[in-house]
Amino acid sequence: LYGYTGHTLAKMLVTVSTGIITGLFAVFLSKFTGAITEWKLGVIEDKSWFVSFLLFWLIGSVLVSAATALVQYWAPASAGAGVTLVMAYLNGNHVPNLLRFETLISKFLGTVCAVSAALPMGPEGPMVHIGACVASCITYIECKCMDGGIFSIFTNCFSCFSRRGHDFNLKEKMKILDEIVSDSDHREFVSAGVSAGISAAFGAPVGGVLFSMEEACSFWSRKTAWRCFIAATLSTFTIQLMNRSAQHGMIAFTGLRAMENKDWLMQLPFLIINSGMAGLLGAAFNSFRMWLWKVRAVKTRHVLRILEVIGLVFLVSLLGHFFGWAAGMCKPFPEGWQEEGYGLRFNCEEGQYNDLATMFLSSQHHTIIKLFSVGHDDTVDVEEDKYTPPFSIGSLALFATIYLGLMSVGAGLAIPGGLFMPSILLGASWGCFWGLILRLWLPAWNIMPGLYAILAATGVLAGVFRSAISLVVLVVEGTRGIDYLIGVILAVIVANWVAHHIHHDGVYESELERIGNVYMLRDEPPHRLFTLTAEAIMATGVVGFRTITPVSRILEMMRTTTHNGFPVFADEEPEDEDGGGGGGELPSTKALVGLAHSSSAADISNAEKALTSGRLEGVILRSQLLVLLQRRHFCDADGRPIGRDYSEQQELDLETEMRTFFRRYFTHARYISATAQPLDELKLDGVHAGSTTLDLSNLYIDLRPYMNRSPLTIRKDCSAARAHQVFLNLGLRHLLVVDAHNHVVGIITRKDLDHAAGHGWWRMSHMAEPPQNN
Amino acid sequence: LYGYTGHTLAKMLVTVSTGIITGLFAVFLSKFTGAITEWKLGVIEDKSWFVSFLLFWLIGSVLVSAATALVQYWAPASAGAGVTLVMAYLNGNHVPNLLRFETLISKFLGTVCAVSAALPMGPEGPMVHIGACVASCITYIECKCMDGGIFSIFTNCFSCFSRRGHDFNLKEKMKILDEIVSDSDHREFVSAGVSAGISAAFGAPVGGVLFSMEEACSFWSRKTAWRCFIAATLSTFTIQLMNRSAQHGMIAFTGLRAMENKDWLMQLPFLIINSGMAGLLGAAFNSFRMWLWKVRAVKTRHVLRILEVIGLVFLVSLLGHFFGWAAGMCKPFPEGWQEEGYGLRFNCEEGQYNDLATMFLSSQHHTIIKLFSVGHDDTVDVEEDKYTPPFSIGSLALFATIYLGLMSVGAGLAIPGGLFMPSILLGASWGCFWGLILRLWLPAWNIMPGLYAILAATGVLAGVFRSAISLVVLVVEGTRGIDYLIGVILAVIVANWVAHHIHHDGVYESELERIGNVYMLRDEPPHRLFTLTAEAIMATGVVGFRTITPVSRILEMMRTTTHNGFPVFADEEPEDEDGGGGGGELPSTKALVGLAHSSSAADISNAEKALTSGRLEGVILRSQLLVLLQRRHFCDADGRPIGRDYSEQQELDLETEMRTFFRRYFTHARYISATAQPLDELKLDGVHAGSTTLDLSNLYIDLRPYMNRSPLTIRKDCSAARAHQVFLNLGLRHLLVVDAHNHVVGIITRKDLDHAAGHGWWRMSHMAEPPQNN
Repeated sequence: LYGYTGHTLAKMLVTVSTGIITGLFAVFLSKFTGAITEWKLGVIEDKSWFVSFLLFWLIGSVLVSAATALVQYWAPASAGAGVTLVMAYLNGNHVPNLLRFETLISKFLGTVCAVSAALPMGPEGPMVHIGACVASCITYIECKCMDGGIFSIFTNCFSCFSRRGHDFNLKEKMKILDEIVSDSDHREFVSAGVSAGISAAFGAPVGGVLFSMEEACSFWSRKTAWRCFIAATLSTFTIQLMNRSAQHGMIAFTGLRAMENKDWLMQLPFLIINSGMAGLLGAAFNSFRMWLWKVRAVKTRHVLRILEVIGLVFLVSLLGHFFGWAAGMCKPFPEGWQEEGYGLRFNCEEGQYNDLATMFLSSQHHTIIKLFSVGHDDTVDVEEDKYTPPFSIGSLALFATIYLGLMSVGAGLAIPGGLFMPSILLGASWGCFWGLILRLWLPAWNIMPGLYAILAATGVLAGVFRSAISLVVLVVEGTRGIDYLIGVILAVIVANWVAHHIHHDGVYESELERIGNVYMLRDEPPHRLFTLTAEAIMATGVVGFRTITPVSRILEMMRTTTHNGFPVFADEEPEDEDGGGGGGELPSTKALVGLAHSSSAADISNAEKALTSGRLEGVILRSQLLVLLQRRHFCDADGRPIGRDYSEQQELDLETEMRTFFRRYFTHARYISATAQPLDELKLDGVHAGSTTLDLSNLYIDLRPYMNRSPLTIRKDCSAARAHQVFLNLGLRHLLVVDAHNHVVGIITRKDLDHAAGHGWWRMSHMAEPPQNN
Repeated sequence: LYGYTGHTLAKMLVTVSTGIITGLFAVFLSKFTGAITEWKLGVIEDKSWFVSFLLFWLIGSVLVSAATALVQYWAPASAGAGVTLVMAYLNGNHVPNLLRFETLISKFLGTVCAVSAALPMGPEGPMVHIGACVASCITYIECKCMDGGIFSIFTNCFSCFSRRGHDFNLKEKMKILDEIVSDSDHREFVSAGVSAGISAAFGAPVGGVLFSMEEACSFWSRKTAWRCFIAATLSTFTIQLMNRSAQHGMIAFTGLRAMENKDWLMQLPFLIINSGMAGLLGAAFNSFRMWLWKVRAVKTRHVLRILEVIGLVFLVSLLGHFFGWAAGMCKPFPEGWQEEGYGLRFNCEEGQYNDLATMFLSSQHHTIIKLFSVGHDDTVDVEEDKYTPPFSIGSLALFATIYLGLMSVGAGLAIPGGLFMPSILLGASWGCFWGLILRLWLPAWNIMPGLYAILAATGVLAGVFRSAISLVVLVVEGTRGIDYLIGVILAVIVANWVAHHIHHDGVYESELERIGNVYMLRDEPPHRLFTLTAEAIMATGVVGFRTITPVSRILEMMRTTTHNGFPVFADEEPEDEDGGGGGGELPSTKALVGLAHSSSAADISNAEKALTSGRLEGVILRSQLLVLLQRRHFCDADGRPIGRDYSEQQELDLETEMRTFFRRYFTHARYISATAQPLDELKLDGVHAGSTTLDLSNLYIDLRPYMNRSPLTIRKDCSAARAHQVFLNLGLRHLLVVDAHNHVVGIITRKDLDHAAGHGWWRMSHMAEPPQNN
């Protein structure tokens, strides 16, 4: 009907539910956080300085201990913002446990705790991870059910749908789902989840899609764009419906006036200084963070990690109370604040609040909105001298300085939490400070500190993350401040430019550098690769098979390596090569067959160890070999089948099984498949003597019907940058390097490319090890 | 200094000037158009029905005749919107004269005329083309100066810059410019120009960048994004500065209220119908247009083309006056209209205006703003019955119907003009009509017809162009209606979905299909390619050279083909091939050398005609061959140089000359280079007997030092979809197809891929011819 198959419908269903459920998570996240914060502030209100400090610390400690314990003992993948790991996943890496249901729950609860404990962490980064987890869980729901694992709430959604007049039964539905969870589809859904998450966090659907495109995804197509778009829209819409009182944007401010062209031009130098300084702050934060990471020894003990977080809560509480007491100014409540429950009375008189304590101890989200709105409730030309901003200049300066320190210390703890909100708060306090100073200095200039706060927040974000277009759209959609579009763009450009001269990479890139076991490939080849050839960066000593290979050898190779693909070489006498490895002469298959008949399996593999080159005929995957072994798809040395007869249906089944091999398991099945475990389960060889062990010496597998006959290859004298391009643009996992005669001389994988780029201009933090030849 | 070389600086300068100059063009475009329209309306005011009609027609005819004459006699590439051809250029096609200075001027003047003649055409599409031309002209300015061609205003800008304290002299500057105009850089600048153009047209910098990304560009990188971003921002900023009275967005409306969640939910069905119908209208326009294109015989005579356009003006004038007289309603002027000069009195009393005549005959831009604002100047609960919308329901319905017809007739004429503005006007009139009906029917429902007009305009745009994210951002930025974001997104999704079921392609894609000589490659491989192999779509009979080739043969091949790249085959005895072409046995080079010594050049080429296969050694480009021939870089049959000595400097010069071959000429130099013209100029062979003709029989060229030794190849049994991916993602011009022994069996070019996809689901309009084997 209309070209829509059940397949498409199921995919659309996944997208739609991803959007809605991510939106619900965001709603509950903000509700829970708000409720806990309010309760906590209620408890400490009207208490004395010291009691309040203790209570704040105590409540915070309980919260963060719970969060850290969850992370440490249950779902380690949920620490931090998680954006970087999701990026790495979308780039093509496999990150174990990143997108599991446990991670989702732990991330959600942990973020609630961390944000309500007033740690310098925000819910936006985690929302990205939560969205990705939701998408992943929904697609894998079927596998979970079959595994008999945790009962998942999403089952309801599916089964209720299948009952609602659509007449495909459960079995059929399963089949459809079975088909949709291919690797690339899964990545697409995760991208949609990322968009939904960020769009829910900021109330910015277009910004969410662009973030997904600019930062998170390495592959992008029109289909992915539509999927992200729908998911992001639905998540935002869900929030709006659930949360009647919510503004359309999460950080929408109120009532700033639009500025005249004249004012823009006059204030241009100040705005540039403002954004430039903000970019500096952002870059400084990145630097502090990397430095602290090096200084701070990595705690391995769980208890120490928990104590670390409790220490940070102590610090926040102590500094907040101390400076609130020592330096905070008492100010009368502006209109509307008391109704919202914003503003801490602290040590002030009735009807007043302490500005510094309020900034430190109450909800960051509220503080940001207040800072963005500074300057709206007064007109410039009336009673110039009597204007009292809600936060004093001194308090703002003090707060910005201390907060930068706290942010840096807070990053890298074993607790979920993102950097968006703290960056915005840091920028807003700096911008407000600068705007108030300018206002004092040039009272006639119609300066709105709130605008400066918005632009500085944008600048800090640009300095920290180095995004461009997505950031502009996020800020504009989030604040609904479309009248300041030009200012926002200016801030992004200036801050990026300034921060680029401090150090080259945004926080995501630096973090990916730091994580050793992830090979992130850049969109554009690093400079260093332009001077190298493919030959220089490839791993040599590729192991492969003849077209008809003894089973024992296949088992041997699969046990001794962890490769996912093996080249298949042609059955011809190899010509002499001058540039070959150390592998002596290569015996032809015929000779090996002779050997196989006369000696044990171990001898064969020794003799064939040298088979590291030959004319490339095709590539066979580990999963395909596993299926062939499992089916006992054997033949003799001349390719005649043994113990089975050919039927077309069987061959079709075999092909289907090969294609869907990974889809029947979780992502981490890839890891398991690379170990010896599935081989042991097959009970084929004598190493694990079972009752069904066969005599393998006469058994072969004919790889020709199954291998990929047209693998993409590059010549060895091709430039390494070209290899990078080919690899990344086509989404390859391995790229064989051949010489002019189509003989394999090496292989390039993600790891090789990453290592080869190791000394490039962009890798400032540490030098990578040279690629290890396997 | 700070890692910025002169190179980067020059590039940045080009980007900046592109943005500013495109902005200036937009300013003047809108000023001229406004002035002419105002003058015209002043002339026909207070005249009788018939005189007014004649005058309107007469003035319009003069204007459009001028525009069409410019297009027909001076710059044919400036007809239509030009967006499609710019897209084709950015996709990798060469379109002659598309980006020349003449085209720019003709486009600018033509658009002014067409828009002010009240034809159903807008200035947005042409702005894209203008932006692209500006970018191209700026980059090629240097070549123009050297050619002694038209004196260009941009020279001033450059020379004034070079004087301003920067101490590189003119010569050095030239060298820098010489380096920046490589093909890929040029595409980057043109992309930036496109962004600047669209951003200037709508006042939407982010939307401009996204349009460039989503619609126009086939290649996209972070660097391109930044370049587009800066150009787009500057062009918008320029407009704002120049045009003090301008709103921030070009189609910004005034004073609609934000809607409650409740209202959104209640009106959801109406909104969906609204957007769906709008999508239908858009798709219907596309269909009409394609149909009319088939029906209407293509006029070849210039005069006929001009008469055609005059006929359209006649139609507009006639229909406008007739319906204004017959069906138009007289309404009292709302507040503010008379000051703006909007509203035609026509046959009405003093202080009143005729709504239908106003819509037909006055500025479209103003009408759109008025339509978007319907519903703002009244509150629903007060005096329900007395509300009089500025346009009556009947007039709106009539207008929308007739306008759809006029738009369809107008498309494809030989006059510059875009589709954005007419589509918006069509959508706005439909949406306003629907909104007013709903309002009559459900007076208590708080329905704002202006909102419906905005969303319907979005829907028509989505139906016509099938963009997604860029459209949302364009509309939101253009109207500044960020409160209606969710509605806009909804409209885009619904309209796209509806329109997709009418026919698959947007107007750009259909138009690209129609243009026969452009091979546009889609982002994703067409379905049909998945079932084919590379062998099935490649062109066979590739001609190539041996590594040491007689000059006469090179000349022969370059004269008889128009290829830009030739494979170079290894000097080895080819093995027997079973799947070879009809080429019999292939004589080895040694045998050919014998032939060459004993017979004439013509004999050699006949004997070597068979040389269409062999083991691939490398690829040599036509431009490289031209340079080698020009330099008389000859050798004898064994590779010893003749008539020259090797020096390192000479070799370096040669390499530089090869690399910069095309940069020293305009884009269309590629066409010339593919003809015999440059060969004739070299005066090498006897065909054009000159005084310097050499005896070529003993002269050879050794291609080995210059050829690309590592061309990317694919195996012949690779899937055609894979070939498409490789080709597009890596931006190739030719892709050699080899067999397992690395022998060339064919070549895939842009043309082959396009033809192979010819019968796919998306190519509805006509069947392509099968690929012609050269």
